[in-house]
Amino acid sequence: MKLTPEQLERFDREGYLFFPALFSGAEIAVLTDEVPRLYAQDRPENVREKGSDAVRTNFAAHMYSYPFAKLARHPRMVKPVMQICGDALYMHQFKINGKMAFDGDVWQWHQDYGTWKNDDLMPEPNAMNVAIFLDEVNEFNGPLMFIPGSHRLGVIDAEHDTSTTSYPLWTIDKDTITKLVGRGGIAAPKGPAGSMILFHSCLVHASTSNLSPWNRVAVYLSLCAVDNHIRRFRRPEYIAHRDFTKLECLPDDCLLNDYDVPLPWKDGTPESALRGIAA
Amino acid sequence: MKLTPEQLERFDREGYLFFPALFSGAEIAVLTDEVPRLYAQDRPENVREKGSDAVRTNFAAHMYSYPFAKLARHPRMVKPVMQICGDALYMHQFKINGKMAFDGDVWQWHQDYGTWKNDDLMPEPNAMNVAIFLDEVNEFNGPLMFIPGSHRLGVIDAEHDTSTTSYPLWTIDKDTITKLVGRGGIAAPKGPAGSMILFHSCLVHASTSNLSPWNRVAVYLSLCAVDNHIRRFRRPEYIAHRDFTKLECLPDDCLLNDYDVPLPWKDGTPESALRGIAA
Repeated sequence: MKLTPEQLERFDREGYLFFPALFSGAEIAVLTDEVPRLYAQDRPENVREKGSDAVRTNFAAHMYSYPFAKLARHPRMVKPVMQICGDALYMHQFKINGKMAFDGDVWQWHQDYGTWKNDDLMPEPNAMNVAIFLDEVNEFNGPLMFIPGSHRLGVIDAEHDTSTTSYPLWTIDKDTITKLVGRGGIAAPKGPAGSMILFHSCLVHASTSNLSPWNRVAVYLSLCAVDNHIRRFRRPEYIAHRDFTKLECLPDDCLLNDYDVPLPWKDGTPESALRGIAA
Repeated sequence: MKLTPEQLERFDREGYLFFPALFSGAEIAVLTDEVPRLYAQDRPENVREKGSDAVRTNFAAHMYSYPFAKLARHPRMVKPVMQICGDALYMHQFKINGKMAFDGDVWQWHQDYGTWKNDDLMPEPNAMNVAIFLDEVNEFNGPLMFIPGSHRLGVIDAEHDTSTTSYPLWTIDKDTITKLVGRGGIAAPKGPAGSMILFHSCLVHASTSNLSPWNRVAVYLSLCAVDNHIRRFRRPEYIAHRDFTKLECLPDDCLLNDYDVPLPWKDGTPESALRGIAA
């Protein structure tokens, strides 16, 4: 798994790369089998949709779930990110976003790095978003929508939206989105479970509600260069991690075979990780 | 404009027919030029989105807007409906649905006839929905989603949803939708402005939010057989009409040339049309 010069050039131009069916059905089954157990847990890492029990986001599963701890170290995911962001990477954020059938709500247009800069004081956008589909993504279950090329503008002014959904977000105004889409259009990669997207932390993206009867669960991993680690711990640690240890890759068969991985929050989230720390 | 036996057979099987670009750009311009003027009016026929000034639905424009009064009598729209529902038709409902850029909200899964039966006591589903696109419809601006074949089940049990959006709707439960989609899938016709869809009043449909910078304005006309007229006037007349006079077609060039049409509500909606009448 090594990105070609053409792929690197395309990433630079469009801000994302799509790898359909990168993980096998057997590999994905190891992860999907674990999700209901995670969502059923009554722990603060589960954020639910407004007015519903459906999980919008589960945070930090790699700290307490064996299959997801292995995914966090999977070479098919980590190695391409190393090519772009450098060899020393840590896990800044780890989410399983539900976008569940019928209940999955919108994510307004935003850049992830906007939040990381504003809330976490991450110095530079030298960090990568990775989406791994645990369900098929089609036109009806709320695919990620990207504005190709929008990452080249760096950080765009944003407003803190705390009302639209159950998760606060720095969102971008309508005039700016209209201009960016006029230039780059909208792209929405679709494909089977096991597909992977790498996308730049400044790429503007959104997703609509999911009214279909098909869940659209996806894992979102945000890897950051170790020397670019966050400087402020205002958000709880399960949302923005504070352990900047370099990720070590496991072998390529790690999802299907047993390997030793740390699970530091297996018996519960430490008190200190539940709160932000004042400056 | 006469439906072929193949089209009639397909309508019977799938519950809808799609006619891309049926109206020309010049014809559609006559209508779209009128919409901002209608939306700007402070009249009860404009229902706005929750928490926004964007118009969700404008009702009954054919009663007070010259271009839309002509559209209501357009032979390219009326004649195919006559082939299916009979020659004597009246206008039961006339809507311009905004689904505006950024603000357009969801419509949950429903059948229109469910509402007409429950609220208006329309005896049979011998009525037709017509959608005419005033904007291009693409995968990003909240296209209508149909469950093909779902009209063959007749009226499906529904619950009155008064909380999701700003317009109350009899919506269908998740288990039923899951079963119906398992059988018929989901279809979402897309095409340029000027396209038309005919769909059965029992066809289950929905649409997602519109996060794109592209408006998705469409006219929805509901034509009902005169002898199948509604029996209860609980809803205001501008929502469910009480004049059962047979529609007379204008010539095919009516949108581009002058023809005499009645505009009874041109100087305002009569008091009696603003309220329902108790049984």
